[in-house]
Amino acid sequence: MLIVMKADATDRDIDGVLDVIDHLGYKAHPMPGATRTAIAITGNQTSVNPSHFENLPGVLEAVSVTKPYKLVTLDLRPDKTVVRVGEATIGGDELAIIAGPCAIESRTQAFAIASAVRRSGAKFFRGGAFKPRTSPYAFQGLGEEGLKILAEIRDVYGLKIVTEALDESGIDLVERYGDVIQIGARNMQNFSLLRRAGKSHLPVLLKRGLSATLDEWLLAAEYIMAEGNYKVVLCERGIRTFAQHTRNTLDLAAVPAAAHLSHLPILVDPSHGTGRNFMVIPLARAGIAVGADGLIIEVHDQPERALSDGAQALTLEQYEQMVNEVRAIHDVVQLAAVG
Amino acid sequence: MLIVMKADATDRDIDGVLDVIDHLGYKAHPMPGATRTAIAITGNQTSVNPSHFENLPGVLEAVSVTKPYKLVTLDLRPDKTVVRVGEATIGGDELAIIAGPCAIESRTQAFAIASAVRRSGAKFFRGGAFKPRTSPYAFQGLGEEGLKILAEIRDVYGLKIVTEALDESGIDLVERYGDVIQIGARNMQNFSLLRRAGKSHLPVLLKRGLSATLDEWLLAAEYIMAEGNYKVVLCERGIRTFAQHTRNTLDLAAVPAAAHLSHLPILVDPSHGTGRNFMVIPLARAGIAVGADGLIIEVHDQPERALSDGAQALTLEQYEQMVNEVRAIHDVVQLAAVG
Amino acid sequence: MLIVMKADATDRDIDGVLDVIDHLGYKAHPMPGATRTAIAITGNQTSVNPSHFENLPGVLEAVSVTKPYKLVTLDLRPDKTVVRVGEATIGGDELAIIAGPCAIESRTQAFAIASAVRRSGAKFFRGGAFKPRTSPYAFQGLGEEGLKILAEIRDVYGLKIVTEALDESGIDLVERYGDVIQIGARNMQNFSLLRRAGKSHLPVLLKRGLSATLDEWLLAAEYIMAEGNYKVVLCERGIRTFAQHTRNTLDLAAVPAAAHLSHLPILVDPSHGTGRNFMVIPLARAGIAVGADGLIIEVHDQPERALSDGAQALTLEQYEQMVNEVRAIHDVVQLAAVG
Amino acid sequence: MLIVMKADATDRDIDGVLDVIDHLGYKAHPMPGATRTAIAITGNQTSVNPSHFENLPGVLEAVSVTKPYKLVTLDLRPDKTVVRVGEATIGGDELAIIAGPCAIESRTQAFAIASAVRRSGAKFFRGGAFKPRTSPYAFQGLGEEGLKILAEIRDVYGLKIVTEALDESGIDLVERYGDVIQIGARNMQNFSLLRRAGKSHLPVLLKRGLSATLDEWLLAAEYIMAEGNYKVVLCERGIRTFAQHTRNTLDLAAVPAAAHLSHLPILVDPSHGTGRNFMVIPLARAGIAVGADGLIIEVHDQPERALSDGAQALTLEQYEQMVNEVRAIHDVVQLAAVG
Repeated sequence: MLIVMKADATDRDIDGVLDVIDHLGYKAHPMPGATRTAIAITGNQTSVNPSHFENLPGVLEAVSVTKPYKLVTLDLRPDKTVVRVGEATIGGDELAIIAGPCAIESRTQAFAIASAVRRSGAKFFRGGAFKPRTSPYAFQGLGEEGLKILAEIRDVYGLKIVTEALDESGIDLVERYGDVIQIGARNMQNFSLLRRAGKSHLPVLLKRGLSATLDEWLLAAEYIMAEGNYKVVLCERGIRTFAQHTRNTLDLAAVPAAAHLSHLPILVDPSHGTGRNFMVIPLARAGIAVGADGLIIEVHDQPERALSDGAQALTLEQYEQMVNEVRAIHDVVQLAAVG
Repeated sequence: MLIVMKADATDRDIDGVLDVIDHLGYKAHPMPGATRTAIAITGNQTSVNPSHFENLPGVLEAVSVTKPYKLVTLDLRPDKTVVRVGEATIGGDELAIIAGPCAIESRTQAFAIASAVRRSGAKFFRGGAFKPRTSPYAFQGLGEEGLKILAEIRDVYGLKIVTEALDESGIDLVERYGDVIQIGARNMQNFSLLRRAGKSHLPVLLKRGLSATLDEWLLAAEYIMAEGNYKVVLCERGIRTFAQHTRNTLDLAAVPAAAHLSHLPILVDPSHGTGRNFMVIPLARAGIAVGADGLIIEVHDQPERALSDGAQALTLEQYEQMVNEVRAIHDVVQLAAVG
Repeated sequence: MLIVMKADATDRDIDGVLDVIDHLGYKAHPMPGATRTAIAITGNQTSVNPSHFENLPGVLEAVSVTKPYKLVTLDLRPDKTVVRVGEATIGGDELAIIAGPCAIESRTQAFAIASAVRRSGAKFFRGGAFKPRTSPYAFQGLGEEGLKILAEIRDVYGLKIVTEALDESGIDLVERYGDVIQIGARNMQNFSLLRRAGKSHLPVLLKRGLSATLDEWLLAAEYIMAEGNYKVVLCERGIRTFAQHTRNTLDLAAVPAAAHLSHLPILVDPSHGTGRNFMVIPLARAGIAVGADGLIIEVHDQPERALSDGAQALTLEQYEQMVNEVRAIHDVVQLAAVG
Repeated sequence: MLIVMKADATDRDIDGVLDVIDHLGYKAHPMPGATRTAIAITGNQTSVNPSHFENLPGVLEAVSVTKPYKLVTLDLRPDKTVVRVGEATIGGDELAIIAGPCAIESRTQAFAIASAVRRSGAKFFRGGAFKPRTSPYAFQGLGEEGLKILAEIRDVYGLKIVTEALDESGIDLVERYGDVIQIGARNMQNFSLLRRAGKSHLPVLLKRGLSATLDEWLLAAEYIMAEGNYKVVLCERGIRTFAQHTRNTLDLAAVPAAAHLSHLPILVDPSHGTGRNFMVIPLARAGIAVGADGLIIEVHDQPERALSDGAQALTLEQYEQMVNEVRAIHDVVQLAAVG
């Protein structure tokens, strides 16, 4: 922490700050400058709460320096985490593709899509049984019935099941029927849910919140890891900005930014990240080009009949085209990393 | 819903859209224009899902018209809701003030502050027992111990207790010890929590999410009301923007905007809405001037020792000054409304 | 500036940073901490460019401390600036009201409105002769013809004329016909225009850009002052955010934030700040309640016939009501400041 | 335009709206629905101003349908524009790379970088002679001296010169010394400058403003085209959002979104779009992967000594690596488009 004093701060003001630093058990380093004094703080084990200082007389601002996370950071673990789900991996050399419908609507629909996903070589199937919907009157998912269909797909096609849990009892169900717990953007700071996920043996796919900073997102992962579950996969899915030509603004710079600080693997979701069918393939390519470890993608056999989010689902043909294109780009990026 | 066709859409494209409208049981109204055709849809009871149309050949865009809420709206109930908590009210002529510390830290602290709150004439006391903290390593509140202190304050000072629930079991506890369930910004779209709150007999204070649109916020209230609990109070507490001079950007226009659509009362939280002590009183004045029904305010007897959010808490002296100023402004606004 | 080193930075990395600091003529203060070293820089007269450091080996980040402005700041001039325009003032005890139509459309329209503005006791008349319009096909203003009408209004009603200049030749014209040069939000970082305004003898009303930080806004004022014109008035007019219930999000916290750093007076523009008629009066009240020195307001005798921005213009009756309400609130705020 | 009436609008309210539509010379199409009436407007040649309707009694909202641009749109010109600068092109099959330093600092610096740019096969050299700087005290560029160095580089290396004009007299100078006029983000709505650029015979590179919507950006291009200059190149360079891990948020979805509406070519600027060296190559790859026609990139021989924006400049080695990677990705995208 660095405490910046006002230009007209008195010696008494400075002494007041030094007293509080001392009282908190830290070490103060006052540095008089041309126009004002700054006081650095060392000796703290975790980040210092700026509110101890911001209202003291003569203080202009308190600037945080130490990052508040421990387990997510490269400082702790310089090698990248590879999350294993059976023989499939996320974060290694393999391009991870998680594909499927937004919501499980019926056994027929789910099987038609799963068959195409399997054919494409993807190893993960996604599909919502419990859907977080903005309106209470919108389709909320098939519930446990949907999970049973997903479990069948796992048995028939050998695909690993990624599905969202909305609450603690939802995690119990995913543990029974699925392979990876998805935590959605709206729940990124549902701390009770994060703690419960931290006690699970299943990997957790943690979507970035609509207005989450990188620090907040990494700290949400830290909540899960602090409970003992180190199998966390980050997922950039678009943030909320003033722009109206997409449903969300896909922030692809978050991929190298997260990799700069953390060992956790990271996926990109171009379906929710754009919300418009014609943008999904271009942004899927961009997501792999920027260095993501994989994609989570909405595919539907009949997008115009979809009960939720049809506007962004790829048709089976589009999905196949996308897989070919992103594989070619993944090869370029892999080669670049080696070379 | 209005479907806008591309300039080069063919008759066949238009027929395709008409077919889907017909298939959905709605009525189509095609309107050829100078450069393009638009097709209006009527006959829908709820809002139409644009994804049925956006990817059809020849469609440029699908524009929603019907608002997706029913119970929160002035269409249903043109008179403003007054939420009663014992003899105290929110939404009527009386200025509602909810004041207290961010977190309950000790009995001594809570009582010192409650005494000042009582003296000011405010009828509600706030204080967190379960704190949603960005970092898992930050102070998380005293838990049930904190709620017991709050219950004592109710008994001693006759103040109504407003306190946050983070999960469904948290609501059980607030029902035991408190008077108003607070749902925080991070949980505004925690739909399981909203549904549980909708089954409570207690009023619910619903904070706006950091990146929630007005529609999303009203639909979160709709989730609660759809379960039968009509005692919902909205609370504007700042949104996330690029601006860095405040912790959040207090969006005071949300107050008249919400009142334009909904009968629910609305409060302003200038403490979280700014995050900086010297801005709280000015924005509290502005919140009442814009027409809010009251304020929720953080007060602390020793802000520089606060375990959370000290930077924004008012001292007891500042709090007293604020109450005087906002009462004078409330009088001006009331007079204006009558005159 | 504070340079924060990575946890695994080597002694050689640290020496590299110290060399660059030395090379730039500053003084380095290395501070080894528990997990990482930070290096403070002093001896700089202006703010240090972080790009000198950010890519050096071992550097995690470079945090700016010194504020980059000199003339706008309270450090230089602790007393608030009062801008005088004849006998009218902005920034003193008097509430400044600038009212008039968005654009001058005709002599009849302008006189009808000016008469009402005069009657209200306001001392400034606003009206655009050159309009910055998003579309090249929208009404662009009457040009010099409009300025001549404004000059007539000054003569007839004794109102001071505030009008926008879009380019350097526009400032020549405002100097001929007007009293205060308005620089619009879109031109806040048109540095050629700012420099030209800095050479004028007229006061400058500087609107905040749609996405301007407080620092950028104050530095735009600094551009004007650096050329010798100290008569700058800031104006908050709303920022661009994700929120869609208003045209812009009026950031009222910017008023105390600017006053915390700068001696310049500050106005609020609730017309552009909301873009919707029914919100203008509430936000005008809030602007004065938060501590602004005055308002700039759009008034029209026939809003539904206005050639630009009719949606936000007050009718003459609404305007009169607003003036009464904000005067009453101004009294409360003045009293509070004294008391 | 679609006028949506309130649920409680009276027949008289509806007649009032019909009268105004009639008065404006348009055709009204009232459509009574289950809960409210909507009225569509046809017969308008340009977009209808919503302010004619928004404050009429009984009106809930006025929804624009017709897009307000004519020349930029695919409706006018379905084939993509290829901008030719001598034998170089932007918008055709060729990948356009514009590289060079942020600011021209000296002849030695500029030549060292130009030599590497030439070697890479890029056909355009960028470099600022007039720099728009947030602070009046920061380095403002070498002015005409810088332009002379650029003209020499054109002669020696055969590179086309892209350089920024800050005002109308700046365009005169670019016309004398350069090949492409760059209009920066801060000037995207400097309409006097846009009109002057529209009268130039040189192509114009139009950067997106920090908070510009897609419509505003396309309308800025429309300003240039409306004056007769059809050689406009769009450039996405990042928008301002709450995210702090980058200087701006590069909105790559703007590339397919612009291509969906307009025939103009579009570049991506990953240097300003991220502001951090380690992100530039990944985002350059992503920009080409998403379908951009090329890149504008900052390169410096000694980034840590750069007088402006050193933090984001690639070293010569990094630049070479980037060119190889984006060429490989461009091949994949081209192949995908054909296939």
